[in-house]
Amino acid sequence: MRKDFFEVIKSSSECKARVGRIFTEHGVVDTPVFMPVGTAGTVKAMPFEFLEQLGTKIILANTYHLYLRPGDELISELGGLHKFISWNGAILTDSGGFQVFSHRDLREIDEKGVHFKSHIDGSSHFISPEKSMQIQINLGSDVVMNFDECTSFPATEKIAEKSMNLTLDWAVRCKEYFERNKKSYQKLFGIVQGSVYKNLRIKCAEELVNMDFDGYAIGGLSVGEPKNLMYEMTDITADVLPWDKPRYLMGVGTPEDLFEGVERGVDMFDCVMPTRNARNGCLFTSRGKVIIKHAKYKKDESPLDPDCSCFVCRRYSKAYLRHLFMSSEILSSILNTYHNLYFYLDIMQKIRHSIKLDSFLNFKKEFLKKYKSKVN
Amino acid sequence: MRKDFFEVIKSSSECKARVGRIFTEHGVVDTPVFMPVGTAGTVKAMPFEFLEQLGTKIILANTYHLYLRPGDELISELGGLHKFISWNGAILTDSGGFQVFSHRDLREIDEKGVHFKSHIDGSSHFISPEKSMQIQINLGSDVVMNFDECTSFPATEKIAEKSMNLTLDWAVRCKEYFERNKKSYQKLFGIVQGSVYKNLRIKCAEELVNMDFDGYAIGGLSVGEPKNLMYEMTDITADVLPWDKPRYLMGVGTPEDLFEGVERGVDMFDCVMPTRNARNGCLFTSRGKVIIKHAKYKKDESPLDPDCSCFVCRRYSKAYLRHLFMSSEILSSILNTYHNLYFYLDIMQKIRHSIKLDSFLNFKKEFLKKYKSKVN
Repeated sequence: MRKDFFEVIKSSSECKARVGRIFTEHGVVDTPVFMPVGTAGTVKAMPFEFLEQLGTKIILANTYHLYLRPGDELISELGGLHKFISWNGAILTDSGGFQVFSHRDLREIDEKGVHFKSHIDGSSHFISPEKSMQIQINLGSDVVMNFDECTSFPATEKIAEKSMNLTLDWAVRCKEYFERNKKSYQKLFGIVQGSVYKNLRIKCAEELVNMDFDGYAIGGLSVGEPKNLMYEMTDITADVLPWDKPRYLMGVGTPEDLFEGVERGVDMFDCVMPTRNARNGCLFTSRGKVIIKHAKYKKDESPLDPDCSCFVCRRYSKAYLRHLFMSSEILSSILNTYHNLYFYLDIMQKIRHSIKLDSFLNFKKEFLKKYKSKVN
Repeated sequence: MRKDFFEVIKSSSECKARVGRIFTEHGVVDTPVFMPVGTAGTVKAMPFEFLEQLGTKIILANTYHLYLRPGDELISELGGLHKFISWNGAILTDSGGFQVFSHRDLREIDEKGVHFKSHIDGSSHFISPEKSMQIQINLGSDVVMNFDECTSFPATEKIAEKSMNLTLDWAVRCKEYFERNKKSYQKLFGIVQGSVYKNLRIKCAEELVNMDFDGYAIGGLSVGEPKNLMYEMTDITADVLPWDKPRYLMGVGTPEDLFEGVERGVDMFDCVMPTRNARNGCLFTSRGKVIIKHAKYKKDESPLDPDCSCFVCRRYSKAYLRHLFMSSEILSSILNTYHNLYFYLDIMQKIRHSIKLDSFLNFKKEFLKKYKSKVN
């Protein structure tokens, strides 16, 4: 049996990009990887059969949603999340913090944890670092995330520092609880906060690295700050993180963001963008975004993306995809989601390939040139 | 090339059940057949990839919906409905009459046709027998249905007769227009009306048979009349219809109805029941219906139907299907629809097999005994 959870196979000579592998109880994940978001135990509109067809190796599931419904204890009783949803690939769970904090009217934070009301039925709940760990242990996810405070943007340095210190305090409590109670195969990631302040980012990363987590996430980005700050924070944070542990840029992002993240040494991404946008009729193609409801596609018999090999692009026309969207047909969500995920996973596949060939920056340049040509 | 549109391969020695084949421009359809309903050019929640996996050879599409959106002329311009929706199997279109008549507040009937308002935007429209033919010719469906008046239930004999006479008048106009303008491969079915009056049913069937259609439908049933009357009308109507033409019982029905119809000589069925019920969480199994939201399935790790070989039953538990339904996840509609259609198509497959073995009544008895046991 392998000892290492993660290994770097090849790194770029041009930048900080690297290709690696994460070894989980539920399969090997090639990195850099994009993780489709499976909020409530399903990647919305995607049968797992399709996710498998897409070569998906890891999905993200939301602790908050599963805790509320159907409940982590029920899932544990039924053998854990993998078994409950019938998914044999790897699962990363978030901590629940992000969802709890984003319902501003429904929550109250103190040092112990967060009191909040369910968005489903208004019932009262309390999540602490320990509770978040316990839920994720019950779910049995392969990668467990620390319960952190996602500092909102903008925040003064003082507020950001206080928030970061809370995240660090909670990190200690998470790790302690996790190590005592985890399932043997589970891994825990620390999350770096610090808003857009270099010194805070560096300090937070250093302290977490001292605690020795299985991997590290860069959190609190893509929350409204300018792109250049997001890239800068990613850059300086990644520099502090150890080479031999996976780095995960949370909640990111656009196709451009994937390239910028990889270039700065990020190994893992997740975002609702490909799936949520799909349901709203916003489709990603090699020549930029397509808003499928646009009247100009009414009689357009061409495929969504002539350069895409997914079954949607091989079989269906833009005119039909538009018709399905305009008619609010469920098939619209299915086909759009399939295509967008194919597009995202295909980018990652090609990124890995380009790094192996040590031509990542060249691929990035070519991809973005075409992507920004917008000739749809 | 074959000359005949339909052939009977084997008939039961016990009853009027028969196995046959319909030869269309878009493939051969084994009968008795159940046609999934693809209202607006999509069988709701079903990628065509799944319909193919299910062995679906023919689907029904709704003239009314496609006429309003995206429009039959647009579809014609794009090469017809098969090409527009990317479906290489056969397509039967209804006449649009049923939908037009069912919007009682929105329509006005006279001898020329029906004035109605769109349920989408309230715009005014007029469909006549000729217009219905033209729309279906534009769509390019393999089987075109006469524009008839679906007599509502209950109706006095006098009203039913008047309505039937309108249907017969329109049948003449439909056939005339169709023969002059059809695409070479298209076939036209006459529709027998007559409410629950034997003499009217027989008269209507006889007159239509004299006009010589490619097939015959039994319409105006399953509209609220008692089951025994529905079966009786099917029975006496089928007796008048020619042996060598397919018979189609419109809008029917439950699993039991499929058996009762086949026993009385019906070759084709369609119904929204498997697909619509699926989206509402009502699932068909070999042991009766399962209402998946029921609390008793909360921790039920068993498959929906242990005797079903569909991928839903092989992979997912009732507990997960319940969770998806309770969370209003799109995947709920997808998996439920797949299973229900599998169940319906599997019944038809087994019915055909049993007729070939001349043991249809035995199979019917066994199936219904188990189906009514309700041990879910």
